[in-house]
Amino acid sequence: MVYLVSESDFRNRDVVGTRDFTRDQLEFIFDKTVEVKTNPNTFKDKLKGKEVTLIFFEPSTRTYNSFLTAANMLGCTTVGFQDPSFSSYGGKGESLYDTIKMFSSYSDCIIMRHPAMGSAKFAAEISNKPIINGGSGSQEHPTQTMLDMFTIREKFGKIDGLTVGMIGDLKYSRTTSSLSYALTNYNVKIIFIAPDFLQVRPEVEAYVKQKNVNFMKTRELSSAINELDVLYVTRIQKERFSDPDEHKKTKGFYQVNSDSIKGCKDSLVILHPLPRVDELSTSIDTTKHALYFQQAENGKYLRVALLSLMLGG
Amino acid sequence: MVYLVSESDFRNRDVVGTRDFTRDQLEFIFDKTVEVKTNPNTFKDKLKGKEVTLIFFEPSTRTYNSFLTAANMLGCTTVGFQDPSFSSYGGKGESLYDTIKMFSSYSDCIIMRHPAMGSAKFAAEISNKPIINGGSGSQEHPTQTMLDMFTIREKFGKIDGLTVGMIGDLKYSRTTSSLSYALTNYNVKIIFIAPDFLQVRPEVEAYVKQKNVNFMKTRELSSAINELDVLYVTRIQKERFSDPDEHKKTKGFYQVNSDSIKGCKDSLVILHPLPRVDELSTSIDTTKHALYFQQAENGKYLRVALLSLMLGG
Amino acid sequence: MVYLVSESDFRNRDVVGTRDFTRDQLEFIFDKTVEVKTNPNTFKDKLKGKEVTLIFFEPSTRTYNSFLTAANMLGCTTVGFQDPSFSSYGGKGESLYDTIKMFSSYSDCIIMRHPAMGSAKFAAEISNKPIINGGSGSQEHPTQTMLDMFTIREKFGKIDGLTVGMIGDLKYSRTTSSLSYALTNYNVKIIFIAPDFLQVRPEVEAYVKQKNVNFMKTRELSSAINELDVLYVTRIQKERFSDPDEHKKTKGFYQVNSDSIKGCKDSLVILHPLPRVDELSTSIDTTKHALYFQQAENGKYLRVALLSLMLGG
Repeated sequence: MVYLVSESDFRNRDVVGTRDFTRDQLEFIFDKTVEVKTNPNTFKDKLKGKEVTLIFFEPSTRTYNSFLTAANMLGCTTVGFQDPSFSSYGGKGESLYDTIKMFSSYSDCIIMRHPAMGSAKFAAEISNKPIINGGSGSQEHPTQTMLDMFTIREKFGKIDGLTVGMIGDLKYSRTTSSLSYALTNYNVKIIFIAPDFLQVRPEVEAYVKQKNVNFMKTRELSSAINELDVLYVTRIQKERFSDPDEHKKTKGFYQVNSDSIKGCKDSLVILHPLPRVDELSTSIDTTKHALYFQQAENGKYLRVALLSLMLGG
Repeated sequence: MVYLVSESDFRNRDVVGTRDFTRDQLEFIFDKTVEVKTNPNTFKDKLKGKEVTLIFFEPSTRTYNSFLTAANMLGCTTVGFQDPSFSSYGGKGESLYDTIKMFSSYSDCIIMRHPAMGSAKFAAEISNKPIINGGSGSQEHPTQTMLDMFTIREKFGKIDGLTVGMIGDLKYSRTTSSLSYALTNYNVKIIFIAPDFLQVRPEVEAYVKQKNVNFMKTRELSSAINELDVLYVTRIQKERFSDPDEHKKTKGFYQVNSDSIKGCKDSLVILHPLPRVDELSTSIDTTKHALYFQQAENGKYLRVALLSLMLGG
Repeated sequence: MVYLVSESDFRNRDVVGTRDFTRDQLEFIFDKTVEVKTNPNTFKDKLKGKEVTLIFFEPSTRTYNSFLTAANMLGCTTVGFQDPSFSSYGGKGESLYDTIKMFSSYSDCIIMRHPAMGSAKFAAEISNKPIINGGSGSQEHPTQTMLDMFTIREKFGKIDGLTVGMIGDLKYSRTTSSLSYALTNYNVKIIFIAPDFLQVRPEVEAYVKQKNVNFMKTRELSSAINELDVLYVTRIQKERFSDPDEHKKTKGFYQVNSDSIKGCKDSLVILHPLPRVDELSTSIDTTKHALYFQQAENGKYLRVALLSLMLGG
């Protein structure tokens, strides 16, 4: 296969949002991820002597620890914090600007999660080292999307031709925003499943439309379940609601369980970026449709691949 | 010495509670610990390429850091959290089930501390990687017991024939529960020293009785001090009391100090799993009886030995 | 150049305060730092097999992470905590004494930050491993001073002959206390710039006077700006004020910005230990006077040099 991209395209590159990546670049990352998953030992200590900063201004388990695992496997050392409250940022009112300036002088790459939209782009402008966006407010979570799409490709052998439903809090979820952007590189159909007040944000919808991707919006899973190849479930992003009353309205609004997927394709795959709370029943876990634990595990391989491409060999 | 056990008995084995270990298995671990303490360099980087997860849902200094030190010495990398509040578990309501599922897909072993009884067993059932119980509620703390008994054996050359007193909060202390179980493998006498409302839990007493171990219960240290070879002191487990008034009753109830050990054997050894608050006077620190700092240091060697046995060479 | 000092003078030495270091010893450390900055690769893995404890009882970004980066670069492993609340100290009331006793049995060096004056000295008395003071209350922060002076020497080629102004919260700032002590080894003039209630502490002033160092105190930057070679700015140490009303008085009291440095020497250098809040305008960042980001970066090299000297090769 001939690529229009090469490893050098990724060297010291920022990973801020999924719109910055072409289809060929995404496929290049997925192929590298296959390499990692097949021959993990060839990546061991590949980045020895490099240092990676992890600064997380919001709680995380998977993103933080899979990046840490990836860095460990590549032989990188790490600095930073998993909890900002005991940093100067949280404890003494230091600016994000100064925080980024400092870490970019200490290490070779900064992986950051921050509640503000635009925070990753802001960091990339300040830093002279590459930034990886580990989640910026409700806006983007590009490495999550990469591992989501890698998991879909791994399962179906391709992404073209699939119908992908996204259900849940599409308004505040950065995972579905990033995924929607990235899917426009493929010949897919997207179905956004949410009540009106949690539906896909206008700018995401506009982007999908502009890219001529086939999509529709619906309130009910039942009206779409029979045609889905992939059902992507997201948690209500409690932390994004400024109005607690609005959040209360969402309580028990939807749950994906054995009942709600009745009539689905035999090959339906259910994904979830995790953590889940009530929106995805554990009764799904043991069905053949559940792919979210494998998806979470793929995060490790994808992030090894990405760091390896960005920081060289 | 011929063992009924071999290293292979420990490979990928869960360490949930002390009742799961035979006398021969315990001795095997102690002998391995002697090796670590004598020739630490032969263990350096022995587990290079392995990754260990540390997830602590309760505060810890010694257990967390001695496991971390042990992992570091063996050349393992580590992931996890020392404070759950910035994980998805603490920050977003993720279940323990999903947390364990994820870490077992990232790393080779999970070391967990959790306030719930049964949590370690629960984790072991979920995980396809071995679980080490770093403390489960007031129930079990098996690696603490192993290092306690190693320290006793190191001091006296044997455990058989000794009289071991345990004083303090025997009701809520997981260290004395685990120690009581494990001592039933030896020919010892156990004296439980506590006021009625803090005495040894019925199921622990029943187990000791069923194993035909010589034991007695008393309210006063003074009535037992002259026959003790080992005095094991525990902290009041403030965090285990659901009723603050009941906790207040324990205030200043007992303290082991120079006065209270009057009449003790010249060879008496005082142990404490630490941290201590008021129950063990610092005036004891400089006496020949104090062995708790050496005990804490042994935690490092014991945990190197155990990880080495579990995760192979 | 012939030194009165050699590497052996630093082996396993405590770094508690700047008054313990002679001019020759400081210069020796600065020269070693030049080596690190020029040939970082020769220091890689130089301390492999050593373990460093980092225990921080107050928030930190730079000190914590530059020590961590330095340890990583030298190939040391690390243990400890960045947030005491989930340790036994914070969570169970363990004493600092017991905490230090334990970590000194686990690792080769303890780097500690603690809000109490005298805490580092106290730790050094307990520990049988060297202590590095990463900040003790409002008293001392010796490694900060070392990197400050290294940065000055790097810029001017020397420290003798310079006029150094310190502005801000000189009463509660440990960085300016430590810097004042250390500067008495040089032929400098010190100008303390602060309102009366934030002026240099009596014991610091007395020490400077006793060492026959030329100094003056003033309330206004404007009266001193034209003669300064170095302007050292410090943050109001909000966390040191026991009376919130007294802290409020300091609000907006001073700010170093383009206006306030009018009339300065062309070669004026502005330093700040960071974090800054309002006292140093970001409008300074892009001027040739700003050296604080370079200063922060130097922290990494200085700490590699220091650890390397202390823990051997």
